[in-house]
Amino acid sequence: MKHLISALVKNEAGVLAHISSLFAARAYNIDSLNVGETEDPDVSRMTIVVHGDDAIIEQVIKQLRKLINVLKVQDLSDRPYVERDLMLVKVATPAGKRGEIIELVGVFRGKVVDISHRDISIELSGPEAKVDAFISLCRPYGIREVVRSGRIAMSRGVKDE
Amino acid sequence: MKHLISALVKNEAGVLAHISSLFAARAYNIDSLNVGETEDPDVSRMTIVVHGDDAIIEQVIKQLRKLINVLKVQDLSDRPYVERDLMLVKVATPAGKRGEIIELVGVFRGKVVDISHRDISIELSGPEAKVDAFISLCRPYGIREVVRSGRIAMSRGVKDE
Repeated sequence: MKHLISALVKNEAGVLAHISSLFAARAYNIDSLNVGETEDPDVSRMTIVVHGDDAIIEQVIKQLRKLINVLKVQDLSDRPYVERDLMLVKVATPAGKRGEIIELVGVFRGKVVDISHRDISIELSGPEAKVDAFISLCRPYGIREVVRSGRIAMSRGVKDE
Repeated sequence: MKHLISALVKNEAGVLAHISSLFAARAYNIDSLNVGETEDPDVSRMTIVVHGDDAIIEQVIKQLRKLINVLKVQDLSDRPYVERDLMLVKVATPAGKRGEIIELVGVFRGKVVDISHRDISIELSGPEAKVDAFISLCRPYGIREVVRSGRIAMSRGVKDE
């Protein structure tokens, strides 16, 4: 099963090496991972997407909780959450096709961030399926480069108060 | 100096642990890091932002190039590139202030992704400075949670052909 793990960690050298070696020791490959700033400059937020057996992922989470530089760990897969992915993609622009590609960008509410004679670079964010659909529509023109952030996620607010 | 390192790596368990331990061994703290999919399911793209002495970062890059599961390493800081950051932020909505916050989201071309009685969740992507400016404008309402992807980057296309 896919697990989406969100962890608050101290912003210290070595914490990433520590956490990634916990997963590597179990030969778990991480689908996507990112570490970014939070409101507190001493604390970073890590979002990890990993596939694996529920029982073993639960063990990994327990071990993460024991690390002193890990402040909080949540398995978001258990509750309602919002997930988003960011992509930069460089698409080839065959003669006369640039307009078509720009139209697609508009429909997907993406943004053109760079244009050269032979290609166009686009920024697109959204749920994974939307980002995947956009790539697949661009494929016939020729995709030169794709950079994706991997998933970030946040639990939904409480609605039934 | 800030370095933005972009690496193509084999999508295998352990590669992340390997790379992050290279940085940790030098007590370099990584400002942001992310690993996401590319067009090739066997290959992931890693973007690392790290501050440090130019000569030592260069050494780390050389060591990265020697790893068999690292296919390509570029220090994007040397050339023109586009960088983007994705953020999910949950902002408190004090009585009568929701409209104001939604206006801000419009100006920044963000998207409202969730609303509850007491808060609103927003998706915003863009250059780091834009994301930072948005957070600082939301701060007076009360920020409940911030999740950021960390920087992703892509070299700009050749324009002078």
